[in-house]
Amino acid sequence: MATILEESPITYQELADIEREFDDVETEIIRQQVQLTKSLYEKRHAVVSQIPNFWPLVIEQAPPDIDEYIQPSDSALLLSSLSSLSVSHFEVENGGKGDPRSVAIRWEFTENEYFEDSAIEKRFWYRRAKDGWAGLVSEPVDIKWKKGKDLTDGLLTLVKAVWDEEQAAGTNGAKARAKGDKITAKQQALKAKIDGIGLGGLSFFAWFGFRGNRVSAEESQTATQEERQRRQRRKAGEEVSTPASEADSDDSDDDDDLEIFPGGDMLALAIADDLWPGAIKFFTQAQEQDALSDIDFESDEELDDASLADSADESERPAKKRKA
Amino acid sequence: MATILEESPITYQELADIEREFDDVETEIIRQQVQLTKSLYEKRHAVVSQIPNFWPLVIEQAPPDIDEYIQPSDSALLLSSLSSLSVSHFEVENGGKGDPRSVAIRWEFTENEYFEDSAIEKRFWYRRAKDGWAGLVSEPVDIKWKKGKDLTDGLLTLVKAVWDEEQAAGTNGAKARAKGDKITAKQQALKAKIDGIGLGGLSFFAWFGFRGNRVSAEESQTATQEERQRRQRRKAGEEVSTPASEADSDDSDDDDDLEIFPGGDMLALAIADDLWPGAIKFFTQAQEQDALSDIDFESDEELDDASLADSADESERPAKKRKA
Repeated sequence: MATILEESPITYQELADIEREFDDVETEIIRQQVQLTKSLYEKRHAVVSQIPNFWPLVIEQAPPDIDEYIQPSDSALLLSSLSSLSVSHFEVENGGKGDPRSVAIRWEFTENEYFEDSAIEKRFWYRRAKDGWAGLVSEPVDIKWKKGKDLTDGLLTLVKAVWDEEQAAGTNGAKARAKGDKITAKQQALKAKIDGIGLGGLSFFAWFGFRGNRVSAEESQTATQEERQRRQRRKAGEEVSTPASEADSDDSDDDDDLEIFPGGDMLALAIADDLWPGAIKFFTQAQEQDALSDIDFESDEELDDASLADSADESERPAKKRKA
Repeated sequence: MATILEESPITYQELADIEREFDDVETEIIRQQVQLTKSLYEKRHAVVSQIPNFWPLVIEQAPPDIDEYIQPSDSALLLSSLSSLSVSHFEVENGGKGDPRSVAIRWEFTENEYFEDSAIEKRFWYRRAKDGWAGLVSEPVDIKWKKGKDLTDGLLTLVKAVWDEEQAAGTNGAKARAKGDKITAKQQALKAKIDGIGLGGLSFFAWFGFRGNRVSAEESQTATQEERQRRQRRKAGEEVSTPASEADSDDSDDDDDLEIFPGGDMLALAIADDLWPGAIKFFTQAQEQDALSDIDFESDEELDDASLADSADESERPAKKRKA
């Protein structure tokens, strides 16, 4: 990272430092944005909860980077039973001084044939690792599936069991195994299950099992402070090189073969930064689509593949105006 | 727009009003962001202008929604001669109280074989029309092409001539013709020229001729004030319906057959909101790509289609790490 650019007095480190300064400003802007929009989101919640099937219709119009993860059976569940979706920046709520980029995504459901839970919440913490990586990490959340109704076919429960085992043993998942730790029976079972998933066959609900990189709150705090100090010393004219551990990794994820939902962090971002703020826009799009007028979301009938594919196609085209 | 949603006490108007309140907050956040990042962008400018070919390398890595407009001959010009790119929110600079969403995009060039200009700037004003439409509008900017080097083959000059003619006559382009105004000789020539453009054959530089919807500053100010007043009265409990002119048009653009660069507003947004803030990221990506080490951007040789297609493909894949 500290290499000097060819034919230029500028180093990569100087460019990286500028990027980090932009990050810092951006983070403060998000902090303000969360505060400034809080009461508006509460108002929106009060209004849209009076509209039947508001959230199912929003999901129906989800952009491709979300929609691609929703299988027909997931869709049947979401369209028939999702009663509310909400995103909170839980580390800065009620005056908290945490990171405004951390998000909790909460799904609420009406009584349904699939699971017992009336609400499932997944939290994502924005963390910085010692090796320079920064992004969202999470913990597996289990779902109380009804008998024979588990859309993940036991995967979620297994991920949670492996996680609990690792927490109890104080080990660090993929990193520990990379260092030579033996794979446990549960990890082995999880690996076999993951390897057995067919192409495109993974349920959207497996996302609740996403863990991402293992970065503790403590590691993140230390790494953030140290990075900032190095940056300040460089700003003051000192020569401070990046530690070797950080030099090679600004885009390297842990290569974790026990991750059941690679890209789960990007999906969380798409929900929090696009679907959630754009909910009214997506709902209005849904209302505008002729095709949808023929589908009764109140019924328990499963939508077949064909009708889902049709509506997904249409969301790509400019919405046509329809008189309600 | 005022229709009541089926089985719900909520009207579309209430949803639209909430969206406008979010817009207002978002606009204030952008205003703050422009202020908070101003000195950082100046610092970045001072640093990157010491790096040879910084902006050509950024352009090389432009995301698909920008890259798709860059023809091989445009690319040859940009890669050999672009010395600086900058975006300013000109309506709020130096304490201005205008709209922070208005942007000026300025391109600076070294002496080159294509045109005389050393800088070309295009301004986009955020405006609201009486019919409810809101977005970016612009004015054609001409380029002093050297003989036989006009990449737009006279199109840009013709657009500018038609614009000047319309300004002088006080007419309103497409709207005037829709109302029955006769098409002028210049407009006719422009239309013939536009119809003659082959698929995919339009130069990126034709973007400087983009006009978009014709909404004057006065119309925008009036429309914004009136919309805000209606919203406040509704908030106070009054029944205020949207004027008929606005009822049917929130996504209808003028259908202007003399627009030479449809989507020019979206391209401006992609440059201002993505390419410009992400310049260091794109530059670093370029450095990381092995392929690029073989191309000498200092040379005047045109890049052939194949090499451009290759690099566009690679920008879609996760960037590979390369030691510089």
